[in-house]
Amino acid sequence: MSNNGIISFSGGCFIAETATTVGKKERQGPMNGWFDASEEDEYFGQSTFEQAESEMVHRNLQLLFTKANLQEDTVGAVLGGDLVNQCTGTSFGITGHKIPFIGLYGACSTIAEGLLLGASLVSGGLLPSAVALASSHFCTAERQYRFPPEYGNQRPPTAQNTVTGAGAFLLTHEDTGVRVSDGVLGMIVDGGITDANNMGAAMAPAAADTILRYFDHSGRSLADFDAIVTGDLGQEGLELTDELLQKCGLDIAPKHMDCGVLIYDAKKQDMHAGGSGCGCLASVLGGYFYRRLRRGELKRILAIGTGALLSANSALQKLSIPSVAHAVCIENVCNTQ
Amino acid sequence: MSNNGIISFSGGCFIAETATTVGKKERQGPMNGWFDASEEDEYFGQSTFEQAESEMVHRNLQLLFTKANLQEDTVGAVLGGDLVNQCTGTSFGITGHKIPFIGLYGACSTIAEGLLLGASLVSGGLLPSAVALASSHFCTAERQYRFPPEYGNQRPPTAQNTVTGAGAFLLTHEDTGVRVSDGVLGMIVDGGITDANNMGAAMAPAAADTILRYFDHSGRSLADFDAIVTGDLGQEGLELTDELLQKCGLDIAPKHMDCGVLIYDAKKQDMHAGGSGCGCLASVLGGYFYRRLRRGELKRILAIGTGALLSANSALQKLSIPSVAHAVCIENVCNTQ
Repeated sequence: MSNNGIISFSGGCFIAETATTVGKKERQGPMNGWFDASEEDEYFGQSTFEQAESEMVHRNLQLLFTKANLQEDTVGAVLGGDLVNQCTGTSFGITGHKIPFIGLYGACSTIAEGLLLGASLVSGGLLPSAVALASSHFCTAERQYRFPPEYGNQRPPTAQNTVTGAGAFLLTHEDTGVRVSDGVLGMIVDGGITDANNMGAAMAPAAADTILRYFDHSGRSLADFDAIVTGDLGQEGLELTDELLQKCGLDIAPKHMDCGVLIYDAKKQDMHAGGSGCGCLASVLGGYFYRRLRRGELKRILAIGTGALLSANSALQKLSIPSVAHAVCIENVCNTQ
Repeated sequence: MSNNGIISFSGGCFIAETATTVGKKERQGPMNGWFDASEEDEYFGQSTFEQAESEMVHRNLQLLFTKANLQEDTVGAVLGGDLVNQCTGTSFGITGHKIPFIGLYGACSTIAEGLLLGASLVSGGLLPSAVALASSHFCTAERQYRFPPEYGNQRPPTAQNTVTGAGAFLLTHEDTGVRVSDGVLGMIVDGGITDANNMGAAMAPAAADTILRYFDHSGRSLADFDAIVTGDLGQEGLELTDELLQKCGLDIAPKHMDCGVLIYDAKKQDMHAGGSGCGCLASVLGGYFYRRLRRGELKRILAIGTGALLSANSALQKLSIPSVAHAVCIENVCNTQ
């Protein structure tokens, strides 16, 4: 058996509820109206940016439990992570919640990784339920990877803006009508890009590898999908991914939507190539796409989280940026739709 | 159903092989003879400490495949992580291997987290096999969390020495005689410790919480175990954990062994409270304990990985150190033993 990475949730795993919380710039963008909550204050009432991100994670998890009318001590586990060093955005946000915690690091692929693992645990009968979550915050990411936000450095056109946002998904065995059906685990691909201001180009080869592997081995074809949704390739990465796939005979362009492109009005909001960060796919998938799937306006999507596995150190050491992309198929399985 | 975190691998998951690679100081310690490979050069022939850690991860994974006589493209997935910012120790080490990759962050609990998730995927029938791995390197950790190694700062008696080491475990469905039977997922516990030079005290409450939960809900008692093996509490954390559990009526002291205490001769090697780091449990469990289980000298152990979820930033911001501990039961199930 070769490791094509396909993973199938034949035991059954469904999304029962989602919760999304974003910052001010995200609320001002075209996705406004699809998020559950937003916060004007970039500090979220805390004294540091890192604590702000943790507060957002905490609030968003609370919101999920409120929306789902659920006691947190019935949840099997929370699986999640973020971009902050040692993933303290998530761990400090979860502290105080009495729920088993599985920490993930997949950079901006984290929510897709969490959905695949959470669905594995639920579908395999190992846990009764699970929450997958991910977050990012513009100010924690910017000062960690690039410059202090106060410095106001110039950014090239390929640069993306880290989304301030969090998304959480409640996964259960119970048939809720929106199913996590299968997916494909990503392999690390290094296209040789060393420019930390061009994440789209760094992640495109991993996205293309994963999408190609999915359609080669899952038994599904592009025609089965209403949308191919990448997480945060941005405009540059979206075009490169489509180009790479076209060379392999797969034209996803007419169905390809990227959350990094969707979340901001790039020109009006001066967002260069678009949004990025773990919270980008987590909030847009949990808001816009989940709701449209729930309503039956979309029947089936393939959501691909793409993660650039660099650190500030690896960039300073002039190493190239290996990337990984995980894909998850989510579909509306209501007979009435 | 309440979330006590117990997870049972009733579908079957076994350890087929392990591989361990350590540095010079670890080879000079009392565990020498139980590791597969060691390296005198702290740079592992590379030009930076971070690349050294990645080289160690890469070599150790190769070693696992060689020992198991396995083609890497048959492996379902690699699950793993380390302490380096954005887990580049692992991701750069895996780059070039064509295996699906699931990145984890659980600080020093990572190998226990990886074994629990890997066993879930294999036992639940989602993947045919999986590799769980974790690593740490003294020089990457020291300069990231505390001071540049060249600075030669003084360390208090409660300080631990980050182990330079890597451990990898191959998990399969096939009955190999050494079984991963069940375990318990950790919850985050914050005991209010803020001293980044006293990880043992920070992690002890999480270790105690997890061990107590395991014996309260797993259906197994302390008498069923030959050893309770913690990962890197060190001397301070070992004593504190035993004390906390004694107050709850559970006396694990006679069976409690800590890999951080075992890996160095603390006095002769001037190692203060002992070893720490993701590679500590990974290398000692994969070397000493796995081999003794394989030979039938140990029948059943409970291995507990304990992770202090701090970052250099959170320590500078004077926040307390939340911790998590995951436990996994490994047993020899050969009838002939």
